[in-house]
Amino acid sequence: MEGFKAPVKDALFVMNELLGYEEHYANLGYEDATPDMVQAIFSEAAKFAENVLAPINASGDEEGCQWNDGEVTTPKGFKEAYQQYVEGGWTGMAQPEEFGGQNLPYSLASTMAEWFSSANHSWAMYPGLSQGCMETLKAHGSKEQQDMYLNNLVAGHWTGTMCLTEPHCGSDLGMLKCKAEPNGDGSYSLTGTKIFISAGEHDMSENIVHIVIARLPDAPGGTKGISLFVVPKFNAGPNGEKLERNAVSCGSIEHKMGIKASATCVINFDGAKGYLVGEENRGLNCMFTFMNTARIGTGLEGLSASEAAFQGALAYAKDRIQFRSMTGPKNPNGPADPIINHPDVRRMLLTQKAFAEGNRALAIYAMQLVDIAHDSKSDQERQIAEAKLAFLTPIVKAFLTETAQESTSYGMQVFGGHGFIKEWGMEQLARDTRICTMYEGTTGIQAIDLLARKVAGSKGELLNIFAQEVKDYCLSIRGESQFNAWSNSIEKHVDEWLQMTGEIMQRAAKNPEELGAASVDYLMYSGYVVVGYFWLKIAVTAQQKLDAGTDDAEFYKAKLLTAKFYFDRLLTRTRSLVSSIESGADNLMAMTEEQFNIV
Amino acid sequence: MEGFKAPVKDALFVMNELLGYEEHYANLGYEDATPDMVQAIFSEAAKFAENVLAPINASGDEEGCQWNDGEVTTPKGFKEAYQQYVEGGWTGMAQPEEFGGQNLPYSLASTMAEWFSSANHSWAMYPGLSQGCMETLKAHGSKEQQDMYLNNLVAGHWTGTMCLTEPHCGSDLGMLKCKAEPNGDGSYSLTGTKIFISAGEHDMSENIVHIVIARLPDAPGGTKGISLFVVPKFNAGPNGEKLERNAVSCGSIEHKMGIKASATCVINFDGAKGYLVGEENRGLNCMFTFMNTARIGTGLEGLSASEAAFQGALAYAKDRIQFRSMTGPKNPNGPADPIINHPDVRRMLLTQKAFAEGNRALAIYAMQLVDIAHDSKSDQERQIAEAKLAFLTPIVKAFLTETAQESTSYGMQVFGGHGFIKEWGMEQLARDTRICTMYEGTTGIQAIDLLARKVAGSKGELLNIFAQEVKDYCLSIRGESQFNAWSNSIEKHVDEWLQMTGEIMQRAAKNPEELGAASVDYLMYSGYVVVGYFWLKIAVTAQQKLDAGTDDAEFYKAKLLTAKFYFDRLLTRTRSLVSSIESGADNLMAMTEEQFNIV
Repeated sequence: MEGFKAPVKDALFVMNELLGYEEHYANLGYEDATPDMVQAIFSEAAKFAENVLAPINASGDEEGCQWNDGEVTTPKGFKEAYQQYVEGGWTGMAQPEEFGGQNLPYSLASTMAEWFSSANHSWAMYPGLSQGCMETLKAHGSKEQQDMYLNNLVAGHWTGTMCLTEPHCGSDLGMLKCKAEPNGDGSYSLTGTKIFISAGEHDMSENIVHIVIARLPDAPGGTKGISLFVVPKFNAGPNGEKLERNAVSCGSIEHKMGIKASATCVINFDGAKGYLVGEENRGLNCMFTFMNTARIGTGLEGLSASEAAFQGALAYAKDRIQFRSMTGPKNPNGPADPIINHPDVRRMLLTQKAFAEGNRALAIYAMQLVDIAHDSKSDQERQIAEAKLAFLTPIVKAFLTETAQESTSYGMQVFGGHGFIKEWGMEQLARDTRICTMYEGTTGIQAIDLLARKVAGSKGELLNIFAQEVKDYCLSIRGESQFNAWSNSIEKHVDEWLQMTGEIMQRAAKNPEELGAASVDYLMYSGYVVVGYFWLKIAVTAQQKLDAGTDDAEFYKAKLLTAKFYFDRLLTRTRSLVSSIESGADNLMAMTEEQFNIV
Repeated sequence: MEGFKAPVKDALFVMNELLGYEEHYANLGYEDATPDMVQAIFSEAAKFAENVLAPINASGDEEGCQWNDGEVTTPKGFKEAYQQYVEGGWTGMAQPEEFGGQNLPYSLASTMAEWFSSANHSWAMYPGLSQGCMETLKAHGSKEQQDMYLNNLVAGHWTGTMCLTEPHCGSDLGMLKCKAEPNGDGSYSLTGTKIFISAGEHDMSENIVHIVIARLPDAPGGTKGISLFVVPKFNAGPNGEKLERNAVSCGSIEHKMGIKASATCVINFDGAKGYLVGEENRGLNCMFTFMNTARIGTGLEGLSASEAAFQGALAYAKDRIQFRSMTGPKNPNGPADPIINHPDVRRMLLTQKAFAEGNRALAIYAMQLVDIAHDSKSDQERQIAEAKLAFLTPIVKAFLTETAQESTSYGMQVFGGHGFIKEWGMEQLARDTRICTMYEGTTGIQAIDLLARKVAGSKGELLNIFAQEVKDYCLSIRGESQFNAWSNSIEKHVDEWLQMTGEIMQRAAKNPEELGAASVDYLMYSGYVVVGYFWLKIAVTAQQKLDAGTDDAEFYKAKLLTAKFYFDRLLTRTRSLVSSIESGADNLMAMTEEQFNIV
């Protein structure tokens, strides 16, 4: 978005002051990731987002991608921006040195991904998709496959995709039809059509490496018969030489509400040559290994839109004058006061601000867990991090993208009718981020993952582990009497959460629909409580800084005021969610299909 | 929207069974508006919406309006559809016979306006804007002005606009700059620029009659110096002869998120000839006379989108198969079950259904009040209707358009990733209806109108009048024990509403920002309670029909089940709104402008 400024300062506050990232990186052996180095890298990333990506965001939306006889042309400037990104070494930031990467932490690269997406959601998807492909090959590829693909992917000369969805199956991959037949030489012939393949075809890289799920002949039905393959656009030699064109083609691109500069492709495999990645019929398990980071990545896209919409609305609210303040002129020499003086405009801005900053704290915490789960030498530390990550991932994905819908909507609303006009950029944010609650698993899928798979599936254990962290924290600040009200509120919420979870599981024992019936409200409830916990931590940290004396008092005072707003006006949304959850499944399941129609 | 079916049956249920429209029309002397006649007209309107307007909705969005050197071309088929509409006599449906109209009730015409807007929001705006122009001239125009313009407007040969907004003033019309200087011959020269003028220029009618607000020389500052003028594109002779071109021109059209086939124009008045309508400096008061119906009209646009999104999502949810139901296969011969079997999909569909049908009952009730306020012979009846209408109008406008955002968002969400793709039509509904919370007074403006101007301005009297209607109704059904829980819930809400209102007014006596701080939450609270009252009435009526025996039992059973959903899962949203309202203004007003920025 034009005029966007990367929130480097807030990210550094969360990392260094809230979550102890200096020690965290040192513990994991990331000796290069000192605070100074992090700040230097962030500063370069901010420039790239603000000066290279933001200026081609609106034009990219206007122009869109063009499909012509199987070739896809990205909008003006996209290719050049990608070239700069490659030359800057950004593609391999968090990849291993052995494949040419810089071996910096995942969390460092991902924190910056938020800003690239704020500046230009469509553009940021191209390098974003490569990550999933690299993670898959690193975790499950053979040595030979790694040698064929990883150097070029890490260097950014090649990009990657994830090919899952087919026309008749999205969430329910058990219905997958794409087939893979052995050629007898260790390779396979893939046949089938995949849809919604982001970055499936484009003009930014020399080659595109598709990770494809398909069925082997005689594979079991359902999700237990899915295998993973690597299928490049151009076949590769043993050391990454680009060879002949493969039978992979882009049949068309979708015409969408937003992210128009991101090519969403129909990809046809017509006996394309591919190689099995990992074991036969274990494809879905392989996918799970990077699903956490892919979902956190989508959550970050939501966060990125909330931040950009906040920045746009704030600037307009300070500039646009309309009506006098109810408590006397604030701009006595002008004909009216800036609309930031009106309480309802403030309500919208503070909602955006509270979501952007609170959600960022949650996101950077989740990334810290990913670092630990990947890199810690301690089994126990890794296991705890993995447990917390399993629990928080669907919350990060769905809560950060659902709240982005509200934040971007307020971005337009603060502008009044002007918010609807393209030139201000607010409507593009709303259109672009609308996909985030749908792709990479809808909010409904995340909610079932949280409540059925994670919480009920662990008999409540995954919730208990996180709840204990929150309770321990509340106990630790009991001496800080000024925070008692908020701390008590969080503790009460945690007790309610645990009890409500038990009640849902009891009801579900009789009627399994109870899980689905409660799921989305339960996820949103969880999101408000988790982010409330982070707002409490932010407030306590900010007060400590103020007590210790600081040159930046306004920054910390703003944190305290935003926390107050969150506790007064956003955390209280749990009241309605509880009522809805407690009402049970009957009010959803009783209506017959025929009764839905009344026309 | 393609495939849309006008909800004629539900409208007739509300009119005839819920709100006693047969007697209502008879009382007001609309002898032609018998139930049979209403049904016949509705049936024709449904055909027009479904067969003429819906098929050019997606193409109109794709093509948009084209501006070329001051001329605006509407998309293919728009002109022809308008011609059919004119030939069908629809433009003068609710206009007086003396100007060539059919003298049918306002409510009859407006009920159908919902369907035209569902089928094609952009198209429906052209005839919609003429209404405001006609109402203004009927209420405030001189006999001479009426003779010059009304016959052509009623016949639809000419269309009209309302020119209010200027680049620097939207909500705050006190800052208006457009000026009108007397020419000495009874006419005025108008100079200035108006923006956001819907239907300001187009190719569908022979002439365009602009109603313009402007300042006379030496007019007082602020809203007390605003006068109203009629300024046609082509000047008119005494009997509506089309004369020479006036100095009115379209400088450009806006590029918008949605309603792309509706021309949103910059209109330049360069010494254009106009005539004063009503008294000098009383322009804003003249505007208020049709503001209720204009705002109800926008509320109807919101409703229209909720209905269309529900229909689209419902059809898809019955057709799309994905996963098995948790309680065993519902489609055992297929590989998976239709997604309408999954509880969270039902939650979304029922939310849409409850909003569409409950909001429709409220809208048709508000229209009944308009009929009475216009046409009743009894002063007392008129006054009560006006009081209720003044109170309900901002609720209808804002609640129906805010809930439309949720309904259209669910319309996409039920489709998963396919909801983001243009060909399904769901994303267009979301884009088109997004303007509805912004134009014709934002939600924030409606909320201040409700709480400050209407409720506090009447010292609570306007709320009391409506609250008494609800309490009387609850008292009247006390014998129906099966409805006690819902009736008690509504009564408790009304008591809470009254008490909370008193508390806000007390706080506002000390700090006037308390009104703005509570306003939007207060409006939404009011909307949930008002629509809850209508769901109670719908449920009681449905039960009476079932008890009496009916061939259409499924229709009435569905009403009872939808009411249950509303009481369990939507009315309960008041819990969070109350918490937010009670938290007061400080959490909004304390932050300084500088503290908002953290980048």
